[in-house]
Amino acid sequence: MDGERTLAEIGELGVVDLVRKSAHRPKNKDLVRGIGEDCAVISFDKTYLLVTTDALVENVHFSLNYTTPYLLGKKSVAVNLSDIAAMGGRPRYVFLTLAAPGQLTVSFARQFLRGMNYWSRRFDLLLAGGDTVHSPSGLVLNITVIGQGQKDSTVFRSGAKEGDLIFVSGYLGDSAAGLELLQRGYSKNGAYGRLVKAHLDPVPQLPLGQYLSQNHLASAMIDLSDGLATDLAHIGEESGIGAEVYADRIPTSRACRKFSEVSGSSPTAWALTGGEDYGLLFTVPAKKAEELK
Amino acid sequence: MDGERTLAEIGELGVVDLVRKSAHRPKNKDLVRGIGEDCAVISFDKTYLLVTTDALVENVHFSLNYTTPYLLGKKSVAVNLSDIAAMGGRPRYVFLTLAAPGQLTVSFARQFLRGMNYWSRRFDLLLAGGDTVHSPSGLVLNITVIGQGQKDSTVFRSGAKEGDLIFVSGYLGDSAAGLELLQRGYSKNGAYGRLVKAHLDPVPQLPLGQYLSQNHLASAMIDLSDGLATDLAHIGEESGIGAEVYADRIPTSRACRKFSEVSGSSPTAWALTGGEDYGLLFTVPAKKAEELK
Repeated sequence: MDGERTLAEIGELGVVDLVRKSAHRPKNKDLVRGIGEDCAVISFDKTYLLVTTDALVENVHFSLNYTTPYLLGKKSVAVNLSDIAAMGGRPRYVFLTLAAPGQLTVSFARQFLRGMNYWSRRFDLLLAGGDTVHSPSGLVLNITVIGQGQKDSTVFRSGAKEGDLIFVSGYLGDSAAGLELLQRGYSKNGAYGRLVKAHLDPVPQLPLGQYLSQNHLASAMIDLSDGLATDLAHIGEESGIGAEVYADRIPTSRACRKFSEVSGSSPTAWALTGGEDYGLLFTVPAKKAEELK
Repeated sequence: MDGERTLAEIGELGVVDLVRKSAHRPKNKDLVRGIGEDCAVISFDKTYLLVTTDALVENVHFSLNYTTPYLLGKKSVAVNLSDIAAMGGRPRYVFLTLAAPGQLTVSFARQFLRGMNYWSRRFDLLLAGGDTVHSPSGLVLNITVIGQGQKDSTVFRSGAKEGDLIFVSGYLGDSAAGLELLQRGYSKNGAYGRLVKAHLDPVPQLPLGQYLSQNHLASAMIDLSDGLATDLAHIGEESGIGAEVYADRIPTSRACRKFSEVSGSSPTAWALTGGEDYGLLFTVPAKKAEELK
């Protein structure tokens, strides 16, 4: 890889590959999974530690023109919980790094923390530490969540087998449609409120993830953060298999289809490449698929 | 606290206090220490998990005018390892969040990772995960380190008692003097190379921290990241005691004193408020102080 190429040119997968190849990674049997999973999985006595970290950058991942401090705090935790959900784990501790412009108000910070608290209360999470630093330009958030998983039931991306059926939870494409609505100036109280809410206020599928893992139903699982096309490719790559998807079987909401007619976009394209739906994508052995339904 | 005040106005301690008061923090006996320590301390079976996270923001914490990608990668890990050292712990896993402008080159990223690897090799650390995202302006780094500590010997900020003696490791103020040299255009190869190196390439005091904790010598400990005045105040506050410091007993290097004459600054001021020396500040019961010497 030519050293003078830029990170923009090699893309996110290129960067991940670069880190994988350049990082010192001695053999360590305690690290069950590292780079390339929803969470790092560390064997710790009788349990797995699940560690995930996600950054949100102002004007890249969110705009203060169309979200609120409360929803931003809530979503920044939700997207990390979604990674824990994708392994069937239970989240325990949250760490917050806040790189904030000096003019950010106390009131903003309080509402942001209230948003974080929503999920903390719901799932008994603890804000255990972090760092607050000055940012000369926009707001940058980094959240790390540490969770726990059972050794006999944690689900990886790599367990899918030929003949497994592919499932998703929730509607796909709502979030991408919602983002387009926000960029066009719609508010969350309008007729397409459901789509806007999907983008601003996603719900991590922890109970479903835990159900699928504890009942050994899912052979592989990932959360839908990048869109069905990319996320399914991750499972395929880690499992060493291909996948067949029927476009007409992808669940899209009536609101999403309706708005696609107005906007001239395709709900299937939103579902495949939009991302940020934060449902779960999982494979199930054919035999068990009946049980699941 | 008036909601319209800004984070710049309430300062770092104000922000920490705000987070402490606003965060949902259910009683959880597993979280031995949370916000307000060098690391979060989580009781996990027979051991303590130590978790620390530190962000470095371009043109706030570093400038690419006077550091190199290699040294930046090295320092970004070192400052986190220093927090593990301050509790007498052993670092295990590193997580890197890189928010980088698209024009950052592959060669930059490779050298940065080489710098991180320096400490990974030395202390058998594993880069286990992270996130890479686009930053529309400068480079923002966030590193999280997970380590382990022994339950019977991990050292907190809160253990200092009246009559304990105060110790520091290394020279104080070198890093602040080095920063001033860099801002004046000096390079690390000049006569004051030692000072510049102290700023760009700090050494986390892991072996010392482990020695002090395993031999139960330190009653309280913290790393010198903010300067002696602030860091000692942290120990005082958490331990509920005051401290007496003799200015003439603060160890400053000959180079630091020499440059202070040229620059018209005071080595004591650098030592007290400069920060980023990353030595250890610890208290020792009078009886044990003999043993230590």
